[in-house]
Amino acid sequence: MSLLSDLMNTVFARRYSRATEPDRSGRSMQELCDALLGSSGEVSGMILARHILDRYAEMDDADKRAFFGFLTTRLGIDAQAVRDALAAYEAAPTKSTYRAFLTASEARRQELARRLNQVPGATGRLVEMRKDLLRLMRDAPEFGTVDLDFRHLFSSWFNRGFLVLRPINWESPAEILEKIIAYEAVHEIGSWQELRRRVQPADRRCFAFFHPTMPSEPLIFVEVALTRGIASSVQTLLSDKRETIRAEEADTAVFYSISNCQDGLAGISFGNSLIKQVVADLSRELPGLRTFVTLSPIPGLTRWAQEEEGDLRDDTPERQRQRAAYYLLHAKRDDGAPYDPVARFHLGNGALVHAVHAGADMSENGLSQSGGAMVNYLYDLSLITQNHERYASKQTIAASPEVTALAQAARKPSS
Amino acid sequence: MSLLSDLMNTVFARRYSRATEPDRSGRSMQELCDALLGSSGEVSGMILARHILDRYAEMDDADKRAFFGFLTTRLGIDAQAVRDALAAYEAAPTKSTYRAFLTASEARRQELARRLNQVPGATGRLVEMRKDLLRLMRDAPEFGTVDLDFRHLFSSWFNRGFLVLRPINWESPAEILEKIIAYEAVHEIGSWQELRRRVQPADRRCFAFFHPTMPSEPLIFVEVALTRGIASSVQTLLSDKRETIRAEEADTAVFYSISNCQDGLAGISFGNSLIKQVVADLSRELPGLRTFVTLSPIPGLTRWAQEEEGDLRDDTPERQRQRAAYYLLHAKRDDGAPYDPVARFHLGNGALVHAVHAGADMSENGLSQSGGAMVNYLYDLSLITQNHERYASKQTIAASPEVTALAQAARKPSS
Amino acid sequence: MSLLSDLMNTVFARRYSRATEPDRSGRSMQELCDALLGSSGEVSGMILARHILDRYAEMDDADKRAFFGFLTTRLGIDAQAVRDALAAYEAAPTKSTYRAFLTASEARRQELARRLNQVPGATGRLVEMRKDLLRLMRDAPEFGTVDLDFRHLFSSWFNRGFLVLRPINWESPAEILEKIIAYEAVHEIGSWQELRRRVQPADRRCFAFFHPTMPSEPLIFVEVALTRGIASSVQTLLSDKRETIRAEEADTAVFYSISNCQDGLAGISFGNSLIKQVVADLSRELPGLRTFVTLSPIPGLTRWAQEEEGDLRDDTPERQRQRAAYYLLHAKRDDGAPYDPVARFHLGNGALVHAVHAGADMSENGLSQSGGAMVNYLYDLSLITQNHERYASKQTIAASPEVTALAQAARKPSS
Amino acid sequence: MSLLSDLMNTVFARRYSRATEPDRSGRSMQELCDALLGSSGEVSGMILARHILDRYAEMDDADKRAFFGFLTTRLGIDAQAVRDALAAYEAAPTKSTYRAFLTASEARRQELARRLNQVPGATGRLVEMRKDLLRLMRDAPEFGTVDLDFRHLFSSWFNRGFLVLRPINWESPAEILEKIIAYEAVHEIGSWQELRRRVQPADRRCFAFFHPTMPSEPLIFVEVALTRGIASSVQTLLSDKRETIRAEEADTAVFYSISNCQDGLAGISFGNSLIKQVVADLSRELPGLRTFVTLSPIPGLTRWAQEEEGDLRDDTPERQRQRAAYYLLHAKRDDGAPYDPVARFHLGNGALVHAVHAGADMSENGLSQSGGAMVNYLYDLSLITQNHERYASKQTIAASPEVTALAQAARKPSS
Repeated sequence: MSLLSDLMNTVFARRYSRATEPDRSGRSMQELCDALLGSSGEVSGMILARHILDRYAEMDDADKRAFFGFLTTRLGIDAQAVRDALAAYEAAPTKSTYRAFLTASEARRQELARRLNQVPGATGRLVEMRKDLLRLMRDAPEFGTVDLDFRHLFSSWFNRGFLVLRPINWESPAEILEKIIAYEAVHEIGSWQELRRRVQPADRRCFAFFHPTMPSEPLIFVEVALTRGIASSVQTLLSDKRETIRAEEADTAVFYSISNCQDGLAGISFGNSLIKQVVADLSRELPGLRTFVTLSPIPGLTRWAQEEEGDLRDDTPERQRQRAAYYLLHAKRDDGAPYDPVARFHLGNGALVHAVHAGADMSENGLSQSGGAMVNYLYDLSLITQNHERYASKQTIAASPEVTALAQAARKPSS
Repeated sequence: MSLLSDLMNTVFARRYSRATEPDRSGRSMQELCDALLGSSGEVSGMILARHILDRYAEMDDADKRAFFGFLTTRLGIDAQAVRDALAAYEAAPTKSTYRAFLTASEARRQELARRLNQVPGATGRLVEMRKDLLRLMRDAPEFGTVDLDFRHLFSSWFNRGFLVLRPINWESPAEILEKIIAYEAVHEIGSWQELRRRVQPADRRCFAFFHPTMPSEPLIFVEVALTRGIASSVQTLLSDKRETIRAEEADTAVFYSISNCQDGLAGISFGNSLIKQVVADLSRELPGLRTFVTLSPIPGLTRWAQEEEGDLRDDTPERQRQRAAYYLLHAKRDDGAPYDPVARFHLGNGALVHAVHAGADMSENGLSQSGGAMVNYLYDLSLITQNHERYASKQTIAASPEVTALAQAARKPSS
Repeated sequence: MSLLSDLMNTVFARRYSRATEPDRSGRSMQELCDALLGSSGEVSGMILARHILDRYAEMDDADKRAFFGFLTTRLGIDAQAVRDALAAYEAAPTKSTYRAFLTASEARRQELARRLNQVPGATGRLVEMRKDLLRLMRDAPEFGTVDLDFRHLFSSWFNRGFLVLRPINWESPAEILEKIIAYEAVHEIGSWQELRRRVQPADRRCFAFFHPTMPSEPLIFVEVALTRGIASSVQTLLSDKRETIRAEEADTAVFYSISNCQDGLAGISFGNSLIKQVVADLSRELPGLRTFVTLSPIPGLTRWAQEEEGDLRDDTPERQRQRAAYYLLHAKRDDGAPYDPVARFHLGNGALVHAVHAGADMSENGLSQSGGAMVNYLYDLSLITQNHERYASKQTIAASPEVTALAQAARKPSS
Repeated sequence: MSLLSDLMNTVFARRYSRATEPDRSGRSMQELCDALLGSSGEVSGMILARHILDRYAEMDDADKRAFFGFLTTRLGIDAQAVRDALAAYEAAPTKSTYRAFLTASEARRQELARRLNQVPGATGRLVEMRKDLLRLMRDAPEFGTVDLDFRHLFSSWFNRGFLVLRPINWESPAEILEKIIAYEAVHEIGSWQELRRRVQPADRRCFAFFHPTMPSEPLIFVEVALTRGIASSVQTLLSDKRETIRAEEADTAVFYSISNCQDGLAGISFGNSLIKQVVADLSRELPGLRTFVTLSPIPGLTRWAQEEEGDLRDDTPERQRQRAAYYLLHAKRDDGAPYDPVARFHLGNGALVHAVHAGADMSENGLSQSGGAMVNYLYDLSLITQNHERYASKQTIAASPEVTALAQAARKPSS
């Protein structure tokens, strides 16, 4: 569709055009924000919004703290006004009283963010703003309310329906590919050559979610290997000596890396949708695919093992697999959820623990976090809903018989 | 950017793929909505959301009324819960109490809409849903609260920053062009030949705003004639015998028709942004353009004139111009705003009343609403902010000396 | 691929930019052509070429005749030079003598055309030039040599490998669609509504070949109906009351109209490739399609029948079918090829005569040319090569048993 | 234009689809070629053509030599047939006799190449074939006639009117960018980081010509630096410490590298068109550009200087400049053309020798070929035609007064 290509070219072209001249009025940031929220906003709003974003871009951390402080204290809700509006609405629940309640109960900083977002390219800049906020919030928990308002808006703006999945490959623009290198969080990509091995061969795929207003910024991406049989080691999977197969020959798709790209979108969850969308798209394209699994790290294993019963590295491979299986199925937080964060993510999505492998990630990071052990989570479309619901309601963890047996064996020595 | 072209192709392709099999569980619409809002939403939410949208699409008005009634009464706010959350927040304004307040103070139907919007193509369907709501609301004012929540969400989703301006011309897809024919609200387009005369010649332009998730649905569009001098009659402007000029020869851009396309987006204002964006884009492309004016109808003139002092049609052209000028500058509503809705729109945007013309729209509609009179509103970028602010604060109407003089002359005969 | 979109946008944008100022040197067309062929061509060639094309565009027929006369007599081959170069090459067949022979044996007008073609957009203008040539050649057979050189070049430029097949549908640009209306040669398209019925429904398709330098000019297009069973009447096929089926339900694709668009490309054959490409593409997209047939006119039937034994319209439908079958299988030209031009085209492609129908095209044109009879030619991929080869070597016409029987029955009454 | 994007996507998608099954008939390459040239070509030609191209792709050099030998001896012209056809044409110069002459005088290998080129993606493969031919021709000069036929066809297929200029930048597909790295022939690009410095900054540009059937293969590209004043050293130009300026601030565009990419297109000249097109496009985009120069190597200087009067490296910078100027203006080949190949290219395009610089390319290669000296050729649009014509007719070399003076000074010491 040329239409959208054109549409988006426009968006793109304008991203870089900023207010050509700065605000000369000598107004403070707070005065600019008040002006933007004020009545003249509709006409001169775009210019004011640019000034505010440009001014923000030049701030140091002290200024930013002051700005977030202003948002926290001055642009929040007025409890008395909410109470009054609520009373009026209860007394007469009409459109007019409800409108007043809506206005009173929403922090004015939400309207500020919406008006800032009129500026082409503003969305990405507001995501950056929240990234700053999350960083500064560590020492200023009172900014938490501002963060919740950002998060509420971003949930609307980055609604699943607005995101678009697209393949990343060797035909992708370099400016996107360099971001894949930069954002890869699981198995580091050291060079363009290594990147090419991840995205160009016929048996490698990469997919990312994008938002229309941030066309060169992936939000989250997943790397996929098409294989015969289930991969049990990331070294083998990523080896530069492996033999490439034709995509049509593969029976399995291995999701071996999922990375979030935007710190400023923390807490806005895309991973679940991404995996399901990729499973659906690959199934359609390659009907020969029968199995969809991850090859995932077990980031909490070492720490847990040390607390439990000594270093994993001393274990035999079999013993390591047993302990990994036990950890995945039985190590829980106080709230009953699995101790392992990656497990929580995939089990929450309805996957099941399919197999565990020793010596599967011999990188420094892999050895350090899990003694080299890794796990396959299986996405079986026919079981996902059931798995998910049992997990959600009773925290039941679905696992293959093999993993269940391994976990049982883990306790035998100590029994 | 190919990226976005691809992105959008995907969106587009999926628009038509609906849930292949209907919900077989026999659940009612309310049960489906409860399920979607419930805890299992995250995993099976997409399927549930499709079912709900498909189910809605098959409803008759009675069913729709029941559905909106459900949204009104069952998915609104719980005043007591709001009060409690507010009290807790006042007592200890932490992130946690604020989160609880945010949840309590937002009607659950907003979350429902966000979850429905996960489905590709859902945005357009929710816009259709609000169109139904606005229609049914005429007899059911209690749905007004639901409407306010829709409007609140749509303000975020259709934020100016997400819209894209694109030219409409003879290379545009037929499926877009037929919508221009259908939605033209000011000067009817009778055939494809007539459409072609509006979009193909070198001295004619058309621009529309689009939203990325609705790529074949214009939201609002404006038709522009590039002329030498300011047009004083729509017949001349649209005549099929006029001589086309090269775009570079024009010194004036005449906005002779602005049409909103989506009833379901009523109250979400785009017109102001559209005109300014088009002025900016045309200025860049054609530096020879000096003047940006509308050629606008005066829809309330006849009615006002009849109330005042008899039929406009009996007036001489000069007298008609005087009365039109007087009407535009002095006929006010009780709240002090101009009586004429088109005047309110352009004056609110910062335009000024530049000239009035008799015999300018001799179509049946034109004669009926204003005795054939029309008006040019001038968008002078150097005056827009000042005009707007005076209008916003003191309801001062900016006008050219000529129009001011005409309005004064209007009263003389009766003095 | 954005690359190509960009590539082509550029081509497109430049199509309309012509030499801004005409050649002021007062040189004649012949002098301009000589200059372009001369040594300074490389540097100022582009400008000269534009001047020549612009000058040509303003010529009347008398001027054009003079120009083609010049090409015929002055820019042909020099027989003596060819003979000399040939002798030198025979004496010593080196690269250098071969180069000299190549130069001598090619008419200089070929090099002229190649240099004219440097100008962006020139290809389409040269196609127009040949259209003029073919028209004027009717009274000037001596231009035939020029035509052969054009045809030789166009065979290279419009080589199958350079053509691209693309679907035409309701999302296609209006400027393309209006050309479909204009060029439809078989079953006239009366309005945009009728066009929409041919390209928008789920069971209708249209495909065209394009050349990259003429992106808004289809070269040839075919209209396809997806049906259950083989259509036996074009009225039924095109009826606006027929029920649309889903594409997946169809078992048959009926090619009911093939139209060449560019008179200037006469003799450069695309139809064979077009049908095969469309058969291949549709088979991939819709695996349920089992049968690919045409529903074709029988343009020579009436004339032949009148010569043979009286008016077709007096026949019973069955008798009409018999005579049509006989005509298709047995009416031959002196060179042994079928009398019917459409039959020659499809049989030459390897199709077979599958069925004949009476009352199948009751339009004025259909009644006039064949008494309303039509024919299905079947493209059976497993038989195409064999059919073609038998036809090419022995002029054997492949036909279904049913049609063979009908043709035999045709002779019985007169025996 | 979506149309072309689609068009080209199709081309692209098919590039990789080859004949799924090889020719099982056991026919030799020569038999396959004969079959393709034979009468059944039209129907089964596409399949035969694929077989031939696939068979060729698997050949070793011995096979290829045999194949080119076959083209040389078996698919050339038949002198007697040419003579006969010529005689018939002279006797009666009709369309029919001319057609016979055209057929006889063209080597059948040209028709073979055209038929091979029917296969999507064949064009690039035929370019590769000529690359092989040129390599093997070094030991087999008799293949020269085949080469001339290839070159004749490629001149038509790669006619300037079919090429498209497009910018190469950091948004370009990685598969294109890696070819820029690979093909850069003047100033080597060592890494992706270095590439990025050449294409991403606001004051750097790169443009390439592409052919629609080879969308990911640049044919030739030029690298441009936008500067204030004329650059006199490539080190400064490419320094990673230089300060980037905004494109609008530049008054000069420096063409510092031009590289041909396709060995198989040797002798098909694009460079002249490329420079002129880029000058035209940049002038339009950046009206502030006043000067268009190259910063070019002087590849023959060292060798010439050694023959003349000893090593350049012993010279003072000033002396080096004098000798370089002298060399450029006065060192000639026997045919009177400049000794320096880069000088021949730019002077032939109508440029003039504007300035010479010592110490301008201190890379190993730069020192070795010219003692570090470089030259600016100036493209002054108002002088290009005149410069070119004087150069073409009288071999007059245009130079600035400064360079002329330097060249004169060069001789003084030795007088």
